[in-house]
Amino acid sequence: MTTNRMLVLAERPTAEVTDACFELRTEPVPDTAPAGQLVVRTCWLGFEPAMRGWLNDLPSYTPPVAIGEVMRAWGVGQVVSSSHPEFDEGSLVHARLGWQEYAVVDPAADEVLAVPADLTSPMLMLSACGLTGLTAYFGMTRIGRPIEGDTVLVTAAAGATGSVAGQIARALGARRVIGTAGTPEKRAWVRDVAGFDDCLDHYDDGIRRALRRAAPDGIDVVFDNVGGSLLDAALFNVANGGRIVLCGSISTGYRPERPEVGLHYYQLLTSRSARMEGFIVSKFADEYTDARRQLQQWVTDGQLRVEHDVLHDLAAAPAGLRRLFEGGNQGKQLLQLAEPH
Amino acid sequence: MTTNRMLVLAERPTAEVTDACFELRTEPVPDTAPAGQLVVRTCWLGFEPAMRGWLNDLPSYTPPVAIGEVMRAWGVGQVVSSSHPEFDEGSLVHARLGWQEYAVVDPAADEVLAVPADLTSPMLMLSACGLTGLTAYFGMTRIGRPIEGDTVLVTAAAGATGSVAGQIARALGARRVIGTAGTPEKRAWVRDVAGFDDCLDHYDDGIRRALRRAAPDGIDVVFDNVGGSLLDAALFNVANGGRIVLCGSISTGYRPERPEVGLHYYQLLTSRSARMEGFIVSKFADEYTDARRQLQQWVTDGQLRVEHDVLHDLAAAPAGLRRLFEGGNQGKQLLQLAEPH
Repeated sequence: MTTNRMLVLAERPTAEVTDACFELRTEPVPDTAPAGQLVVRTCWLGFEPAMRGWLNDLPSYTPPVAIGEVMRAWGVGQVVSSSHPEFDEGSLVHARLGWQEYAVVDPAADEVLAVPADLTSPMLMLSACGLTGLTAYFGMTRIGRPIEGDTVLVTAAAGATGSVAGQIARALGARRVIGTAGTPEKRAWVRDVAGFDDCLDHYDDGIRRALRRAAPDGIDVVFDNVGGSLLDAALFNVANGGRIVLCGSISTGYRPERPEVGLHYYQLLTSRSARMEGFIVSKFADEYTDARRQLQQWVTDGQLRVEHDVLHDLAAAPAGLRRLFEGGNQGKQLLQLAEPH
Repeated sequence: MTTNRMLVLAERPTAEVTDACFELRTEPVPDTAPAGQLVVRTCWLGFEPAMRGWLNDLPSYTPPVAIGEVMRAWGVGQVVSSSHPEFDEGSLVHARLGWQEYAVVDPAADEVLAVPADLTSPMLMLSACGLTGLTAYFGMTRIGRPIEGDTVLVTAAAGATGSVAGQIARALGARRVIGTAGTPEKRAWVRDVAGFDDCLDHYDDGIRRALRRAAPDGIDVVFDNVGGSLLDAALFNVANGGRIVLCGSISTGYRPERPEVGLHYYQLLTSRSARMEGFIVSKFADEYTDARRQLQQWVTDGQLRVEHDVLHDLAAAPAGLRRLFEGGNQGKQLLQLAEPH
């Protein structure tokens, strides 16, 4: 009999996510999936900033993870036992697997998707062709809507979402794509690999002026993953008719306390007839298939460069989540637990 | 020979607009208008919060008023001499007349408009059927876009723009229209005359919770004239898919220094797929005629109630502007200098 190892929430973090917030439990894996369900062996788990929000005991668009519950996470795994007609044993699926080596999932409830056969790597299902890439895609194409000649700013441009968002803007004809990132290595990657025109230091105290120099005619589209004072500096530099896409706010740490840094330049939205808009990617769920196909095409064409930052061992999962907030990851943070065969 | 009395900018205000910021000058009025121009006798001048911004020596979408220049203002006056084929002597016009008893205006440069014959009072050209009403109209119909069943919040609802905005929302089918205002008299007017369902005290420290009680399902459309902590409280209560129209920010006094109160709840725009958008009414200039007709129709039908707060004497002009920021006016602030005949 195979044993499943899982990390369950033991106590809610007050600030930083520590290893002690989770507890390792083991239990046997069923040999055969219950009727209508699947037993899936986790291959890769993905990490998103929103997961930090699920650890807060606060109402949101996703309910919090309960104490004693396996930490919720999206992953890609291989079906080891199937009692569902649409999923064959051996096939790869994307599902809400959680921080565990094996998951029993119900396609009717756990948003199970077959990994499309045309995907060049299953890991893309957790990055450029998964919810991360779809978030960048819909945020940029439906809210930011860069047109030819536009100047686009993407904050946290070395991140999984930001790097895709900036490359999409370029593919759509933006004249100038500027990023921000926290370390020299990341900035070099954003410029040299992801092909942004420029990448600024988002911890620079003079970022407001640096942005003015980098975009003297103003910024037409801001795709923001950071929030706080960096978003305020971007607001200060927004062009007439500009669009600010609120995707995330990593600077606030997704913590329950009221964020300390407020936006001061919002009045400029009035004098510049500009707009700031947030969105939840699931709003566009009906269009995922087409969007995923477009994203894969860009990857295949080399217009969309993707990097994965892969940790190993279930015990590293809390560190994987922490790395997002410490700026430790370069590209999409993943945790590999098994190799599909 | 007639003498013109005018108020010119003597020194820029640092905070509050004082009488000493302006200087009275006199000069003769030409008997005959120069070629292509008009001599207009000022009947009413209007006051808008944006005028405070013109006193700051800062670049904006409208250049600042220069030291020694007549204070810029929109007004309605009667043509006393015309050298322009489209404007007859004796007719009423709306133009950038400035703080003066007579103005020589050039229809090609000073945005001169004939007061439409179907207007039930020329004063409406400075309130519900003028730029104030047009601002409410386009902000509400193009950005806020309330639909049947929506809950709408208008801040500074006793103000010239806010009162029109709320009544338009009602005319468009909003289920519940809530206002905020600063005094019991204004709140009574907003409820009893302008017909809002409720009007809250916008100086109430517990406004965030008061709004939650007044709109337990969230606010679909916010039409904001105030900014600062009141806007933040409205943001906190925005519904899924909500639209926040940024029209003005009277709480910041339109002063050059960075506003002290930042927005903290902007992250909620993301989780609620909501939008905050500013605009400048001149963007819709091509559609003014139709909009004005609709506004007059609502006034005639009794669906749009308008109040004018009329001062007299040119020397009261600085006080007229101050009143907007002190909350002293009830309805559209005007200054009457002459009666048309």
